[in-house]
Amino acid sequence: MISLQNDYSEGAHPQILKRLAEINLEQNPGYCSDAYCAGAAEKIRKACACPEAEVFFLVGGTQTNQVVIDTMLASYEGVVAALTGHVSTHEAGAIEFTGHKVLELPQHEGKIQAAELRELASGFWQDGNHEHMVFPGMVYISHPTEYGTLYSKEELEAISQTCHEYKLPLYMDGARLAYGLTAPGTDVTLQDIARLCDVFYIGGTKCGAFFGEAVVFTKNNMPARFLTRVKQHGALLAKGHMLGIQFDTLFTDNLYNEIGAHAIRLAQILQKGFLDAGLQLSINSPTNQQFVELPDTVIKRLDEKGVVYSFWEKTSPGKTVIRFVTSWATKEETVRELIRILKEVV
Amino acid sequence: MISLQNDYSEGAHPQILKRLAEINLEQNPGYCSDAYCAGAAEKIRKACACPEAEVFFLVGGTQTNQVVIDTMLASYEGVVAALTGHVSTHEAGAIEFTGHKVLELPQHEGKIQAAELRELASGFWQDGNHEHMVFPGMVYISHPTEYGTLYSKEELEAISQTCHEYKLPLYMDGARLAYGLTAPGTDVTLQDIARLCDVFYIGGTKCGAFFGEAVVFTKNNMPARFLTRVKQHGALLAKGHMLGIQFDTLFTDNLYNEIGAHAIRLAQILQKGFLDAGLQLSINSPTNQQFVELPDTVIKRLDEKGVVYSFWEKTSPGKTVIRFVTSWATKEETVRELIRILKEVV
Amino acid sequence: MISLQNDYSEGAHPQILKRLAEINLEQNPGYCSDAYCAGAAEKIRKACACPEAEVFFLVGGTQTNQVVIDTMLASYEGVVAALTGHVSTHEAGAIEFTGHKVLELPQHEGKIQAAELRELASGFWQDGNHEHMVFPGMVYISHPTEYGTLYSKEELEAISQTCHEYKLPLYMDGARLAYGLTAPGTDVTLQDIARLCDVFYIGGTKCGAFFGEAVVFTKNNMPARFLTRVKQHGALLAKGHMLGIQFDTLFTDNLYNEIGAHAIRLAQILQKGFLDAGLQLSINSPTNQQFVELPDTVIKRLDEKGVVYSFWEKTSPGKTVIRFVTSWATKEETVRELIRILKEVV
Amino acid sequence: MISLQNDYSEGAHPQILKRLAEINLEQNPGYCSDAYCAGAAEKIRKACACPEAEVFFLVGGTQTNQVVIDTMLASYEGVVAALTGHVSTHEAGAIEFTGHKVLELPQHEGKIQAAELRELASGFWQDGNHEHMVFPGMVYISHPTEYGTLYSKEELEAISQTCHEYKLPLYMDGARLAYGLTAPGTDVTLQDIARLCDVFYIGGTKCGAFFGEAVVFTKNNMPARFLTRVKQHGALLAKGHMLGIQFDTLFTDNLYNEIGAHAIRLAQILQKGFLDAGLQLSINSPTNQQFVELPDTVIKRLDEKGVVYSFWEKTSPGKTVIRFVTSWATKEETVRELIRILKEVV
Repeated sequence: MISLQNDYSEGAHPQILKRLAEINLEQNPGYCSDAYCAGAAEKIRKACACPEAEVFFLVGGTQTNQVVIDTMLASYEGVVAALTGHVSTHEAGAIEFTGHKVLELPQHEGKIQAAELRELASGFWQDGNHEHMVFPGMVYISHPTEYGTLYSKEELEAISQTCHEYKLPLYMDGARLAYGLTAPGTDVTLQDIARLCDVFYIGGTKCGAFFGEAVVFTKNNMPARFLTRVKQHGALLAKGHMLGIQFDTLFTDNLYNEIGAHAIRLAQILQKGFLDAGLQLSINSPTNQQFVELPDTVIKRLDEKGVVYSFWEKTSPGKTVIRFVTSWATKEETVRELIRILKEVV
Repeated sequence: MISLQNDYSEGAHPQILKRLAEINLEQNPGYCSDAYCAGAAEKIRKACACPEAEVFFLVGGTQTNQVVIDTMLASYEGVVAALTGHVSTHEAGAIEFTGHKVLELPQHEGKIQAAELRELASGFWQDGNHEHMVFPGMVYISHPTEYGTLYSKEELEAISQTCHEYKLPLYMDGARLAYGLTAPGTDVTLQDIARLCDVFYIGGTKCGAFFGEAVVFTKNNMPARFLTRVKQHGALLAKGHMLGIQFDTLFTDNLYNEIGAHAIRLAQILQKGFLDAGLQLSINSPTNQQFVELPDTVIKRLDEKGVVYSFWEKTSPGKTVIRFVTSWATKEETVRELIRILKEVV
Repeated sequence: MISLQNDYSEGAHPQILKRLAEINLEQNPGYCSDAYCAGAAEKIRKACACPEAEVFFLVGGTQTNQVVIDTMLASYEGVVAALTGHVSTHEAGAIEFTGHKVLELPQHEGKIQAAELRELASGFWQDGNHEHMVFPGMVYISHPTEYGTLYSKEELEAISQTCHEYKLPLYMDGARLAYGLTAPGTDVTLQDIARLCDVFYIGGTKCGAFFGEAVVFTKNNMPARFLTRVKQHGALLAKGHMLGIQFDTLFTDNLYNEIGAHAIRLAQILQKGFLDAGLQLSINSPTNQQFVELPDTVIKRLDEKGVVYSFWEKTSPGKTVIRFVTSWATKEETVRELIRILKEVV
Repeated sequence: MISLQNDYSEGAHPQILKRLAEINLEQNPGYCSDAYCAGAAEKIRKACACPEAEVFFLVGGTQTNQVVIDTMLASYEGVVAALTGHVSTHEAGAIEFTGHKVLELPQHEGKIQAAELRELASGFWQDGNHEHMVFPGMVYISHPTEYGTLYSKEELEAISQTCHEYKLPLYMDGARLAYGLTAPGTDVTLQDIARLCDVFYIGGTKCGAFFGEAVVFTKNNMPARFLTRVKQHGALLAKGHMLGIQFDTLFTDNLYNEIGAHAIRLAQILQKGFLDAGLQLSINSPTNQQFVELPDTVIKRLDEKGVVYSFWEKTSPGKTVIRFVTSWATKEETVRELIRILKEVV
């Protein structure tokens, strides 16, 4: 079996496992009040070049989106997101569960555009009926997006500027941020993100941790009583030091970037393999998710060879887009073997 | 001042006021347990030719949509509606407030299409990831729509059939139902609606009552403990008999239809007036809402003449669609005077 | 049949009906933006001697409690109330429906005590674990209480002072306020209430209106986007002018107090009748609700005579407390007849 | 420093750490659909002697209580619990956050009594007004309770029988279940719990796991679409196999009971030490939480010696109850040293 189905199939980067084992019998205070969480937060502040950033650690991605969006919004506000944003589609309505509408913008390979955001925001305030409508209250973007694409610094600056003009906090879902920061050609750094976003999260679950997402509030804007609100959402981890030690490890000796760079290198090999095999990339993704359109007959042969991937979408009768994902845990020989098989079955 | 701004500017049809006055000093049990509510329900069952229908009376439209949708859906389900549906746009997020997503379909002059509904429903169940998505749990349509348009019986039957194939209850928002039932050319009767919908409401607020909407569950499907859930939503009226007497009156001696027919006749006169004045109908509405596109310069002159209308939308630079609405309370001379002015300013 | 079951059995005071009829065909803008609402608000401000008060009109009591409490509280806060407070017991969980806990205090004939409130508030902040608990966020009292009792000015001042020491807004549910303001021996005026409470509502439904409650924010503290939040709760009345005209009438020519005084006079006659008949008042209520404990055998005889009352509670085997309520609509002869029957059956 | 502050200070039992390391590079499907979760569920079914049990794994205790209670209750229902139940007091309103009231019963050393439960349930249905009240919808107990006490089998049977008479599912919070099952004198087995409860959870976080709670539905009563609802609550763990491997380990070779027995043995030594030192147990707890009342002067001396404990409550001026907790990770020498210090400072 060859599986490149996703980036959360394995446990954790060995370095994380090692440190977790080392401190296993230590006693730590609960609920993220421990020294590891404090240390990790400090390292993240440094990496972001944002000394005033407030950092809180949560367990999973949907949970993080739900908690951040619900606590940042007023109750009469909704979150603006791309039609294809994770919060719009694949979180089982976790945002609406807390009372907020997702106000959808068109997507362009998973991204929103500053001009369309401006149109939505200015249109809202022009409309005489806006008191009967959901107020846009913040903007959600993912980077990388659900399609593996990335914002350029110029795009991000335009969105950020539009947000601030309309007093909309900008929130970035960085579930796969390691793979975005290390992608070829990107000009967006962690410092840029901290500067341009009001809040974002640094993904752990998909980037080498067992679990965990580090939420970074960059503008002295952590919601009041945030710990209590996290608890109220059922999202406060008792042994919070497990989150601390993981992020401390990820932000020690450049590990987070190394994890990203490894997966990106393999994704690039894979992408080249697709092209060499005469296949069509369905999206030009510079990150660790690679999308390729295949005839269903070819897909059937892949299945027979024990290749595991993610179904993405039916495009036309007999054609399907599937997704391959590399990660910190992917081995180069697995990628090479997949390419070999692909060439065989195409 | 000439105002055709909406159909809820005045109080109530004189017959309703009269009966309310007659019973003013009577004592009635609270919370819709009175004889007038029972009588009105019985008359509605007869009018619907649906002897098993369960009827409950609520105060307003957004409230009714919120209560019906929230109590009919499981918590993990959303309601399917047109992009332009009232629940999608102009209820300040009242649906999301109760935890449910509005799953939006394209709109065609305010209407949804059975084929697109089928695509959404079947696509949901095909997708391997659907456990991470909001389940479609019911379908919302308005009739007349927010654009004044009506479903044909054929369209309604196709939607109803699709709904039932996918076990999605069909819910009709009849805020302006009187004006739909009496529109020229419609082939949809109240009995058809009761047969094809699982639940719908007969609008009172915009059709001659002081306030009130009669929710009709047609398939022995009133949610358990409905009265308690209405109370929990803050929507239970203490003096419920006020709702009963109003609907009893509306469904006595054909009043509900008369109210509709009066407004429709005037709307038709108005429409003809537009065309005679060389104006363009922006939607071909057979009901009591009439939409016309005018140059902003003409609109300014209308303003100066003291004509009051609703702003609808900017269509292009210098052009705006405005809406005129007739009702049970509109006088023919008002409509004629408006036409005169229109011809003058165009 | 003689019914003194409650104070919301009849329609509205004839003066309200009259004015509603007079303006029935007038056109008014919707959603409480009309001149009647503005006028009523101004009269209420004057009656409260609180020129900066912000007034909003809602339809019913549970709705008002839900909207006010939910919009005044932060999401991690709960409302402190007596165990027997309406919000604690008889609103079907409408407060919890919006996410807030009711933090219960002991009740003393329906009232809370400043000392016990202080203990709760100070205890909360002392407890090292308070970040894992619901924060007390406001205090709810009813005046008259659910037991017909009233706070003295001294009691109210002590509660208000304790609230403000702990930064807890004080909210008074005045569903039956007319009957509280006019009770014998009370030293609490509407001006006192406006001075001592941060928000309160003046009950209409039980005090002569068809429906309606006037919420008064006394400290420039109306929650942001209040109209939108009301809409989001499904609580915004389209024909808001109906609320305006009713409260305008109630606050013209002293009508609100007259309504109260009438009911109180009859309640006092009834109370004296109880005592003359050798019956025991189960609570010494100076307002329009009168509670009397009777043997079940006597109650059975009342039933046979067609007397209608409210069941209150079983006190011991064979004994039950029942409640009689007078209102603006109660006639003196009804009360006298009830006393006659009581004397007969005891 | 000597800390017996709680049972979630350390990481995980070494055996769990070992197995997690062994499978670290394995690929597993996400969201608890892996073989370890399946295996753990099967072992739990066997240990419960309940072959039809449905098992789902969640991350933390408050999260589990929130998800179970919210998904088991109808929206108009509340959960009955002791005043001191975790859901009543220390979950930051997580239950109310999902719309449900906690209906509080008196507590008797942390336990509820069947007779008082019966009174609440029967009283609810007797009261004519119950449609305006929160319906009791399930019963929550903790075992061990927040005070370390345990139900006897007889007590549990009485509660279970009362629950079923009133159709109230019985839910047991087993956050510290290991310590309950192995306490001296208990006659309640895991099989009894599975037989008498409709749903319960087997605590992992406080009983040797890094994190995790195993929810067991015993009567084919797992709520529909449970996985989706877990996701909607933000509670679905991506790398669910981490939960599976932990519970698989805990239920292999009797580890769960061994963990419990170890902590209990040390708690008994500690209890005897208290008594030998002439101290008063404030509660007679047979489990791993031990409560002792000390003069504040003695507590100050403990602080100076570096002893760490949990503050429990002020009992009288100058006296405080503090709590010591043993766990799988506690060493006998730590307990002995604590006793030595206690004797010194008393």
